[in-house]
Amino acid sequence: MREKRRPNAGMWISGINPVREALRSSSLLPSEMLHSRSDPRVQELLSLCTSRGIPVHPQNRETLSSLLGHEHHQGVALFVTDFPYAQLDWILSRPLQEREPLVVLDSIQDPQNLGALMRSACFLGAKGLILPKDRTAKITASVMKVASGAASYLPVAVVTNLVRSLGTLKDAGMWIVGLDVQGTLPLYDVELAMPVGFVIGNELRGLRPLVRRQCDILVRIPAYGPMDSLNAAVAGALALAELQRQRQFTRNTASPRTGPSRHEQG
Amino acid sequence: MREKRRPNAGMWISGINPVREALRSSSLLPSEMLHSRSDPRVQELLSLCTSRGIPVHPQNRETLSSLLGHEHHQGVALFVTDFPYAQLDWILSRPLQEREPLVVLDSIQDPQNLGALMRSACFLGAKGLILPKDRTAKITASVMKVASGAASYLPVAVVTNLVRSLGTLKDAGMWIVGLDVQGTLPLYDVELAMPVGFVIGNELRGLRPLVRRQCDILVRIPAYGPMDSLNAAVAGALALAELQRQRQFTRNTASPRTGPSRHEQG
Repeated sequence: MREKRRPNAGMWISGINPVREALRSSSLLPSEMLHSRSDPRVQELLSLCTSRGIPVHPQNRETLSSLLGHEHHQGVALFVTDFPYAQLDWILSRPLQEREPLVVLDSIQDPQNLGALMRSACFLGAKGLILPKDRTAKITASVMKVASGAASYLPVAVVTNLVRSLGTLKDAGMWIVGLDVQGTLPLYDVELAMPVGFVIGNELRGLRPLVRRQCDILVRIPAYGPMDSLNAAVAGALALAELQRQRQFTRNTASPRTGPSRHEQG
Repeated sequence: MREKRRPNAGMWISGINPVREALRSSSLLPSEMLHSRSDPRVQELLSLCTSRGIPVHPQNRETLSSLLGHEHHQGVALFVTDFPYAQLDWILSRPLQEREPLVVLDSIQDPQNLGALMRSACFLGAKGLILPKDRTAKITASVMKVASGAASYLPVAVVTNLVRSLGTLKDAGMWIVGLDVQGTLPLYDVELAMPVGFVIGNELRGLRPLVRRQCDILVRIPAYGPMDSLNAAVAGALALAELQRQRQFTRNTASPRTGPSRHEQG
């Protein structure tokens, strides 16, 4: 029955935060919300729907999981015309432990890579994803399918000028760590205790020169075999995993750990 | 001109070893070889072609790269009806440093995942890949495209009985380390100095019970975010990277490192 009312162009988003952002946005035109819970956090969303005249339908959890293709929906799903992107300012206004590590993608073209990266980044504790407005895959229904529900948790910001936004991250106290096959330091030689934004380049051409210049450190994933490059999404996962491994080790041993001194770019 | 002679069903394979294996196999029916080099290793392949009546054509390196979609061809490409799989016995007969770490896939269904895993495994120094005969994606032209040339270097064996083959690996002195979301030990708590075969399970269901029972150790990749599982290809890459990181660290510090005592399965 309901299928009749759903427009063809659009996608299901899920998770409390993305649904709230979409309901607050004036540009997304949500057409329907499904919910399998009615606790206070969901009540807030139901009120937003009522005030915007958006139909809501209770649904059981299993049906919701089956419709979305994953279980990471937190009991809510909203049909929208576009993905509800977050504002970079909002990501940076959160408490320190909720705003880093971040992942910045410079010109990733392949939707499969973008979705894979979202899933790994979310699993490995990234707190946000930053994409440039141009020359980069955007979040579509098929990207969200590969991301397996990561879009429910991981805020994604689209910025007009990536180089300037990297400056904003630095002003907010973050170290910009570029992953580059030409990187001078092996990943495992860099201490990643400081707040970090990892920058991952295009699948073929790597980081753009202006983006590279904004990086405080350029690291490379060491190769142990005959291949000379790694898939961008896998490189991002290895970097995040190493950051978390180091921090866990530090917490477990409580040894003093200091970051390197920032390399000021000319 | 040459395009006319190429059968529709088949694929280009490249790299000295896969081409040699294919030329020695009686079942693959190679139809044409291209080569951009003529040194002794390629001369051996040219002789094999002559003895089997297979046409050979010199080609420049760039054309070969463009035809194959990658540069990891070592100057030779052969058009065959199927991928030239290696024998497990052959993999295990090589010198120790050329036969491990191995990666064993238990029922990976997605060709994209298989190709991604081959590329990462090759970059991260895996020495071979083992697939079960049934219920697993096989190496096709599209898998090789995702693998970006890794098939030129990474021997792939297909085995009839995966559980029995894991026993063969153990008999050859390898530790079978299963990656499992239910694994008792976090990856980073396991010392990976011993010869290792990592076993990676199906995207949805993980390791099959009989395969799990053959594992000496079951490790999990720690989650640092709200997602509960990781893509199988990414999990494999993280495990191989950690093994190489540990071994590099050991080489650099020359500290004594011993493996845990093998957990005998009941």
